[in-house]
Amino acid sequence: MNERADYTRVPETRVRRIVGDILQACAVPPEDAAIVADVLVTADLRGIESHGVSRLISYYVNGLRAGHVNPQVHPKIVREMGAVFSMDGDNGLGHVVTRRAMEYAIDLARVHGVGVGTVGNSNHFGIAGYYAAMAAECGMIGLCLTNSRPLVMPTGSREALLGTNPIAVAVPAGGEPVFLLDMATSGVPIGKVEVMRRRGETVPIGWGADARGLPTDDPEAIIEGGGLFPLGGTKETAGYKGYGLAAVVDILSGVLSGASVLTSVLAGADPGASGVGHFVAAMRIDACMDPNAFSERMDAFIGQLREAPLAEGEEEVMVAGDPERRQHAENRLRGVALHENVWKEIEQMAEELGVSPEEA
Amino acid sequence: MNERADYTRVPETRVRRIVGDILQACAVPPEDAAIVADVLVTADLRGIESHGVSRLISYYVNGLRAGHVNPQVHPKIVREMGAVFSMDGDNGLGHVVTRRAMEYAIDLARVHGVGVGTVGNSNHFGIAGYYAAMAAECGMIGLCLTNSRPLVMPTGSREALLGTNPIAVAVPAGGEPVFLLDMATSGVPIGKVEVMRRRGETVPIGWGADARGLPTDDPEAIIEGGGLFPLGGTKETAGYKGYGLAAVVDILSGVLSGASVLTSVLAGADPGASGVGHFVAAMRIDACMDPNAFSERMDAFIGQLREAPLAEGEEEVMVAGDPERRQHAENRLRGVALHENVWKEIEQMAEELGVSPEEA
Repeated sequence: MNERADYTRVPETRVRRIVGDILQACAVPPEDAAIVADVLVTADLRGIESHGVSRLISYYVNGLRAGHVNPQVHPKIVREMGAVFSMDGDNGLGHVVTRRAMEYAIDLARVHGVGVGTVGNSNHFGIAGYYAAMAAECGMIGLCLTNSRPLVMPTGSREALLGTNPIAVAVPAGGEPVFLLDMATSGVPIGKVEVMRRRGETVPIGWGADARGLPTDDPEAIIEGGGLFPLGGTKETAGYKGYGLAAVVDILSGVLSGASVLTSVLAGADPGASGVGHFVAAMRIDACMDPNAFSERMDAFIGQLREAPLAEGEEEVMVAGDPERRQHAENRLRGVALHENVWKEIEQMAEELGVSPEEA
Repeated sequence: MNERADYTRVPETRVRRIVGDILQACAVPPEDAAIVADVLVTADLRGIESHGVSRLISYYVNGLRAGHVNPQVHPKIVREMGAVFSMDGDNGLGHVVTRRAMEYAIDLARVHGVGVGTVGNSNHFGIAGYYAAMAAECGMIGLCLTNSRPLVMPTGSREALLGTNPIAVAVPAGGEPVFLLDMATSGVPIGKVEVMRRRGETVPIGWGADARGLPTDDPEAIIEGGGLFPLGGTKETAGYKGYGLAAVVDILSGVLSGASVLTSVLAGADPGASGVGHFVAAMRIDACMDPNAFSERMDAFIGQLREAPLAEGEEEVMVAGDPERRQHAENRLRGVALHENVWKEIEQMAEELGVSPEEA
């Protein structure tokens, strides 16, 4: 991240502590508060500001304080068959619930080679890649999906029915770092359209549609009554594929978990319980192949991509996870880069909740 | 499909018989020949002409006759752990091998709730959706992936390194038909670019790049030395997401199965053994939820999509599998629509191989 005037660098430990303390002041147990802080700070360290501590108040604290989200969560396995389970998230913070679900999937994978689970009755969980990466840390392949509040128009419709429903896949390599794909199934996030509106600029055709469902370059029209296009954009450029992927994510995360789906998902800025659902899976590599051979093959695969001849004007071919990894390295060293308004809001909330600034 | 002058309608049973007989004349056992015929004819019935009997000679018969593909395949499970297995495809026809692999995944799912397998040392298998749909026919959720010959440029590169690596997902519903997504992870197939070249028309920006890796509207430049863009198109419209998905498919199908990956995949028109790999999974719905409740939820989910308010100029909102299902209904009734050259080529091959035209 380039240094920007309205951003401040805060030491990572200080951010973790204040986030944890604020959550504890909202009746979240210390261990669970630390999990949420870890997910949010990890997002900021990776440069995924839209899913970091900037969401602490609006997505989580407000919901907890209004009694819409359960701070003392006891997720329960409600169904289990061999390597598959279904978890009730007890209307808790999605981070805590999904961490437990992925831990359980990893445990099942140790026994069965693979572990798969749905999570219902949950809430916004931050970055999907966090949970997929948990499996990779154990030498397994990880998958994490979630549905989210409706922002994306199915091809042919003018109504935003689907969430940006992300897909995250993590695959460990050998000398190369973890392959970590974490992508929304929309073309762009709504935040990117909002930035363009603030700047008074137009957006590329394919990002979204106006209230009539027609492609537009006007960010205002996308935000006010319009919607995002699924990955692929218009029908002409195969936007129906992104629509299909977003639907798969909603089916596995929402329909199959008993959670809210489509327009019934009200996550995010809305302080009510969102009822979102997630899907997690972990798979042992040695169930298919010698893990050392796999590591070598992954390194060769990634290496061939990195060394591919460059397109004109390009400086490198990146592999999934590269951009975030660079930011992570820089931010760990220099402190978490937070917009000064975000940091101010957090400090004010700490004060309001009686969290001692010295301790925080 | 609109009736076109250079297309002929052939009764389905006749197509199945002649395809089967040709393959048997190439030393493929009757049962396996029937499987290949079923996959190819199913593609044509669904209107997926590019993966139907038009490929019989160039993709399969030539390889069999040249000794590059093993007609008498004995796929072997080379590794197995709980719900996960790895299959060696014995360099056989991909259809036969992958049908067995999906049957095995379904068997494992009956016991463990889920079954997952990789297939290496295989060849082109036709439409991925065929195998995913096998799981849905058993009331399960099905997934099938495959890598394929390099046609797609990773974002930032000017070299086509990745295949169009499809993702197929099938989910059974209740009153609604099976949700069946079967999509390449490129924006468009190369065949669509070839059609535009023949017509002398330009293509939308986002379909592909020229030999320098720059976006172009010239189909000639994409085909001759250029390449397809991944789903999402250019970097500006998030083509790196399609690139990421294509890489995931290559990792699961190729790296993890021990098959060829990236540019080492030489499937398709090349008659040599391709060494492609596949990935299959099947999951029981009742491992997560009461299957009747799931059917109702799927029907409601699909229903809400169908009834979504239309974008201006649109006539309907479709759900994955709808367009192919309509073609299927029409083609079953009226016969398989084949380009007259394709049918002529097949009849000539039958004659060359001594397949009796009466029997065929």
